[in-house]
Amino acid sequence: MNAMSTIQRNHISDSRLTEPVTPQGRALLDLISPHLPQIRAGAADNDRNGTFPVESFEALREDGVLGATVPTELGGLGVQCVHDVALALLHVAQADGSTALALHMQLSRALTLTYDWAYGPPATRALAGRLLKSMGSGEAVVPTGVKDIPRNGVRTVLTPDGAGGWLLSGGKTLVSLAPMGTDFVVFAVMEGDEKPARQAAAVLPRETPGFTVLDNWDGLGMRASGSVDIVFDNCRVPGDSVFHRGPIGQQDVAALAGMTVSSINMLGIYTGLVQAARDIAVETVARRGSPPAGVSTLVAEIDARLFAVRSTAAAALAAVDRLLFDVGGDMAERGRRMMTPFQHAKLVVNRLGPEIVNDCLVLVGGASYSARHPLARLYRDVRAFAFMHPFTYANAVDYLSGQAFGRDLF
Amino acid sequence: MNAMSTIQRNHISDSRLTEPVTPQGRALLDLISPHLPQIRAGAADNDRNGTFPVESFEALREDGVLGATVPTELGGLGVQCVHDVALALLHVAQADGSTALALHMQLSRALTLTYDWAYGPPATRALAGRLLKSMGSGEAVVPTGVKDIPRNGVRTVLTPDGAGGWLLSGGKTLVSLAPMGTDFVVFAVMEGDEKPARQAAAVLPRETPGFTVLDNWDGLGMRASGSVDIVFDNCRVPGDSVFHRGPIGQQDVAALAGMTVSSINMLGIYTGLVQAARDIAVETVARRGSPPAGVSTLVAEIDARLFAVRSTAAAALAAVDRLLFDVGGDMAERGRRMMTPFQHAKLVVNRLGPEIVNDCLVLVGGASYSARHPLARLYRDVRAFAFMHPFTYANAVDYLSGQAFGRDLF
Amino acid sequence: MNAMSTIQRNHISDSRLTEPVTPQGRALLDLISPHLPQIRAGAADNDRNGTFPVESFEALREDGVLGATVPTELGGLGVQCVHDVALALLHVAQADGSTALALHMQLSRALTLTYDWAYGPPATRALAGRLLKSMGSGEAVVPTGVKDIPRNGVRTVLTPDGAGGWLLSGGKTLVSLAPMGTDFVVFAVMEGDEKPARQAAAVLPRETPGFTVLDNWDGLGMRASGSVDIVFDNCRVPGDSVFHRGPIGQQDVAALAGMTVSSINMLGIYTGLVQAARDIAVETVARRGSPPAGVSTLVAEIDARLFAVRSTAAAALAAVDRLLFDVGGDMAERGRRMMTPFQHAKLVVNRLGPEIVNDCLVLVGGASYSARHPLARLYRDVRAFAFMHPFTYANAVDYLSGQAFGRDLF
Amino acid sequence: MNAMSTIQRNHISDSRLTEPVTPQGRALLDLISPHLPQIRAGAADNDRNGTFPVESFEALREDGVLGATVPTELGGLGVQCVHDVALALLHVAQADGSTALALHMQLSRALTLTYDWAYGPPATRALAGRLLKSMGSGEAVVPTGVKDIPRNGVRTVLTPDGAGGWLLSGGKTLVSLAPMGTDFVVFAVMEGDEKPARQAAAVLPRETPGFTVLDNWDGLGMRASGSVDIVFDNCRVPGDSVFHRGPIGQQDVAALAGMTVSSINMLGIYTGLVQAARDIAVETVARRGSPPAGVSTLVAEIDARLFAVRSTAAAALAAVDRLLFDVGGDMAERGRRMMTPFQHAKLVVNRLGPEIVNDCLVLVGGASYSARHPLARLYRDVRAFAFMHPFTYANAVDYLSGQAFGRDLF
Repeated sequence: MNAMSTIQRNHISDSRLTEPVTPQGRALLDLISPHLPQIRAGAADNDRNGTFPVESFEALREDGVLGATVPTELGGLGVQCVHDVALALLHVAQADGSTALALHMQLSRALTLTYDWAYGPPATRALAGRLLKSMGSGEAVVPTGVKDIPRNGVRTVLTPDGAGGWLLSGGKTLVSLAPMGTDFVVFAVMEGDEKPARQAAAVLPRETPGFTVLDNWDGLGMRASGSVDIVFDNCRVPGDSVFHRGPIGQQDVAALAGMTVSSINMLGIYTGLVQAARDIAVETVARRGSPPAGVSTLVAEIDARLFAVRSTAAAALAAVDRLLFDVGGDMAERGRRMMTPFQHAKLVVNRLGPEIVNDCLVLVGGASYSARHPLARLYRDVRAFAFMHPFTYANAVDYLSGQAFGRDLF
Repeated sequence: MNAMSTIQRNHISDSRLTEPVTPQGRALLDLISPHLPQIRAGAADNDRNGTFPVESFEALREDGVLGATVPTELGGLGVQCVHDVALALLHVAQADGSTALALHMQLSRALTLTYDWAYGPPATRALAGRLLKSMGSGEAVVPTGVKDIPRNGVRTVLTPDGAGGWLLSGGKTLVSLAPMGTDFVVFAVMEGDEKPARQAAAVLPRETPGFTVLDNWDGLGMRASGSVDIVFDNCRVPGDSVFHRGPIGQQDVAALAGMTVSSINMLGIYTGLVQAARDIAVETVARRGSPPAGVSTLVAEIDARLFAVRSTAAAALAAVDRLLFDVGGDMAERGRRMMTPFQHAKLVVNRLGPEIVNDCLVLVGGASYSARHPLARLYRDVRAFAFMHPFTYANAVDYLSGQAFGRDLF
Repeated sequence: MNAMSTIQRNHISDSRLTEPVTPQGRALLDLISPHLPQIRAGAADNDRNGTFPVESFEALREDGVLGATVPTELGGLGVQCVHDVALALLHVAQADGSTALALHMQLSRALTLTYDWAYGPPATRALAGRLLKSMGSGEAVVPTGVKDIPRNGVRTVLTPDGAGGWLLSGGKTLVSLAPMGTDFVVFAVMEGDEKPARQAAAVLPRETPGFTVLDNWDGLGMRASGSVDIVFDNCRVPGDSVFHRGPIGQQDVAALAGMTVSSINMLGIYTGLVQAARDIAVETVARRGSPPAGVSTLVAEIDARLFAVRSTAAAALAAVDRLLFDVGGDMAERGRRMMTPFQHAKLVVNRLGPEIVNDCLVLVGGASYSARHPLARLYRDVRAFAFMHPFTYANAVDYLSGQAFGRDLF
Repeated sequence: MNAMSTIQRNHISDSRLTEPVTPQGRALLDLISPHLPQIRAGAADNDRNGTFPVESFEALREDGVLGATVPTELGGLGVQCVHDVALALLHVAQADGSTALALHMQLSRALTLTYDWAYGPPATRALAGRLLKSMGSGEAVVPTGVKDIPRNGVRTVLTPDGAGGWLLSGGKTLVSLAPMGTDFVVFAVMEGDEKPARQAAAVLPRETPGFTVLDNWDGLGMRASGSVDIVFDNCRVPGDSVFHRGPIGQQDVAALAGMTVSSINMLGIYTGLVQAARDIAVETVARRGSPPAGVSTLVAEIDARLFAVRSTAAAALAAVDRLLFDVGGDMAERGRRMMTPFQHAKLVVNRLGPEIVNDCLVLVGGASYSARHPLARLYRDVRAFAFMHPFTYANAVDYLSGQAFGRDLF
């Protein structure tokens, strides 16, 4: 039985993001489980101090978790479905959201690299393969920089170095996992002769001269995710270390697929946070004896909405899994059919998730208003998803209403 | 490949209640599709006048739709999974909610009868088989009476007739499909020597002396569903036409399974109503040209919540399908694991469904406030689900908070 | 103590729309109270049959209620604050929403006519005075036609009749109170030589040749409000029976004031409907003995939101009362400061009102799903407010976001 | 014109908590305004470090703000209506929520002491007068300890010292303002001969031997409010420094009035936080040029709900002001008529407030997720109200549903 039918067989047992749907997904969960107590134990202090959980990540690396989504041919575990990645992140997030967010950077990046390696043009395949191999062996930890630092107003650009390579300058913000990163994927604009300019992604080893990883992450939540800024000052990038993408400013509907795969696994993270909040709250009020009316009602309403969160996340993940390696058809339509369910689910999780966590604080009462209470951390962490691209709320409204009216608008 | 693995294979393609997961489900959809235009065409007038769509039902009967959930061995189409029944009802409900509600009575009853026929004690199997055979041939139309008429305050009881049979007296309310009914399943209390009294369900042919089907349904919505009262005045019921159930007042957790199967297909009906409202609204505003800000936002929010409704309904149906014919384990636990997801999904659909329909009226504006506008009908129809057992809101809160705290409370 | 300080003195005792703030408002309530039982008694049948409550209105007319907002100088009761008009409508709406809606047409029209009479140019003052006098004596019942009939696509226009008068053609829809109307205020475009064309309002006696009041109102709710279409076929209108307004298409911010006064009293109507639903529901569940958890929680949440509805409506009404006869300042700013609180309150009442009524049906359960149950009527009636101008939801979003950003956009 | 009619006259101009309704309230605002820039400037760092704004409080004390609610006869400013106190706190909260919360402790305590001084038995009047005089002169800063420290499980008790005085032992938690406190009002149980034991409130100078003010406040929000624990180890309390209250465990409905006055001013604080969040968000998106659809819609919805928050808070405050010095009637009914509107408004503010702040973060986007962004602080601060007594959510449900059903249940 091939992988697809295994996925299919198992999806009935998991329309709520509870069980893996591939053996590789099961193996990943088994690898991760022993690490959860340590991750959970460090969560409060790392949140407090904004410290990245280096030891947890070293332990995950040793056990091969950081190569989980690398194809087996390249030394990885071969988890190749977003449902199972999201489920793994859900478990990690129940212990610590920040760790899950940083881990997501690595696991989701390998998924899109695998697509590049399997279907890209030759240069892309070679670069993706090289990177994946290094991730599969546990050597490479690969954070991604997407968003230019808004504060300095400088665009990140690649300019030709005159010798077939490039010079990278600029800076990126919110680069989760950066404290551990060995190689960084950095989105940039190629400023050569070509008009319009093209987008690209440079792969930059940490030791590159001119490259600095700052230690400046200080978020409301997700404080241990190491989501720092990174800056580049004329960093040399060899010609074969750059992924060439499409022209700037051209709406590439097909590219919605890659954007979806890069981000959809976060549905698992935020579902995990909500589940964690619910479990703490129900456990706490259960200890208090016969529940008053308001408590019974809130508990029932929390569980019903959590069911919706889990079902909705699972449905969006299943929609993407169905198309993940289906590249034979209309690629624009594939892009839409991946992004639309993701955006629907993201809106729903962003609406219901914080509502549920809020109600969990109400159930527990004043004790949960202490800075160190796990619910206080969850209240801050759960809020991060609304800020994660794609899309912002305004862009999601434009995109989704456009889709409803048959227009690509984003 | 057996039925179960077919279901499993197909579930990945349907975590949003869009495609059948069995060939029988596909066949049922194919049978139903040609009838939808007629059903849709009659909806406005039937709603207006509160008339039952007899012709539509005769046509469905002729095509074998009324026996769809009867096992093939007994002459039916053999649809044996709630996902596919709910999906068929979803399609009918997009044309007319009342017709879907009445059809649900027949299709869901045959599902629980099939369970009785497959796993019941000998007398139960014989009676269930007899009834199913008659449903499979298209002869029997079987409404169910559950709720005693509250207005006359009379309990429905079976008393021994002294000759091995019973006399049935009392009355039932909200018996959808009754105008077409040939044989009625009537829940009653057995008032014999046994203490505590037992519950039972009598099967009563329409022509039974003393049995009257009233024509008194006049609802806010679902006006064509024929949800009338039926009354019994010393109706003779042969001994072999009675299903014997458990003692009264004893909480039977295992019985939650049958209660769930009887009702969960309604998730399809109300999802269909919400989808129909959304389609009318989006079509209407699409014709008006460039949408204002409020319209774009509402459309995006409607589609996101509709995605949640569909995913949540599908997840609950999948949870039940997984356990439908799994009778080897702890039957109490099976009951809980069927009822809990159903109640979660019901709360979610009852929260989001009316919200969405409401927003659809806002999109369309004043035109939708005409009594005959389809959105005005949907606004009234969608409200019915909150009243459908199991459970009322208060009972759902007790049941679900009980489950969260590890107690069976309902 | 003058009227204003009486209003001021009493507002502290009524930040929740519970007591009149002027002696005239108290007198109006006293006049109305004896009629409420009859209005309540007829509500169910009038809703059922879509019949206008002619007898109730004749009785109200005899007691001077229909002239309540006409200045005492012109024979009326002199109620001149929207708080007290809204409060009177609230009481009527608790008995029957349709009657309140039709009564609102008369009472609110006299308020804007009073403004015209007090501050308009001479011709306007004369016409307004004539009409008010006739309303004050109980003779004139004055429905207003604002919205052209969309179905026939014909604009309502006034064309010069060559003899100093006009010919009116076209048609208006949703003209509540029309079945009783003696004189109709009809908004129209003046198609003369002037460019751009100007807006006007013609006053049309019912017996005018070419004028037809249809009997075609058939709404989802507010079914006894007589909100029919009226059509004009070259009806002669004397030159002194036309109010001249500003040029078409020119955004007149000052005119927001009149639009607000015409409509804001409806806050009282919908607050009354919500209060009525709450009272029915609480009374019903109170009779059932010890409330289950879900019921207690819903009741508390209903009452809290109802408090918000009442407070919000009262605050918007107070804001308008403060400016009603304050015409010495910036009239554009006055327009904004009346419309903005009204639109805020309208959004809030349209969000919370239907939510509360919905929860009341949940409390009462299946009995409330009967077409004739008062909650079923309230469920339909409460929905009307969202369709009432000004504004639609989309226009409210444009207007209010514009105000937030310092722009007049509507 | 006496104070009451001044209040009345002004209430019409303030059904939205925008203007003071007494000259004293105006004077208080004028005193406070010059301090707001300093309070605002320190907010970020004090939040960060959890430091109490001692300098701001010293400055407020010098200007007489800390005696604002002390009667003029006793040296204070004589602000005697909760509307004006809440409004002053609203202004402070727009600058810093923590400062407002600490200031509320002082201002609201003087209000209840004034009641004691005016209407209490002789010993109560004397003690209240002494304390008020000291507050009026700016000398005394009086935090209150209500809730026993749950962590050490010790009840706070007064035991007779055998010499007409008492010994106080135990501890209190969440004593906002304690870092500045000179005299503490400490609720305790009197463990003497009397059965049932009585409640009391001891007045404890800071320098009392055995009394310790901890420095252990570390909340999710309101971090600069100094809401520390205080502990007592056999502290001597003279007999005339104890307020005697009613017997323990006896439901004292009249006491609801004092509980309301102690807490209702917090409506101003949380309204201020919501207003501050709205202003930051609208200002931020206004700078970005033409708003996308989702932004316009959110802004309109934010402003509508903020209007509801302000109106609802103002209505509850007005209800209390009306009864504040009305002690001639049924004191139990007075208690209910103060507490019920407060609880209604508290539920509404707790539902809409966090929703609005949440939407403000959505408007601003990722920048607001920085720990030091003012919206990040508001997101945490606004959450505190749900934990403030009276009541918890569960107790509010019991109390309010009880009131709806005509029972005192809390």
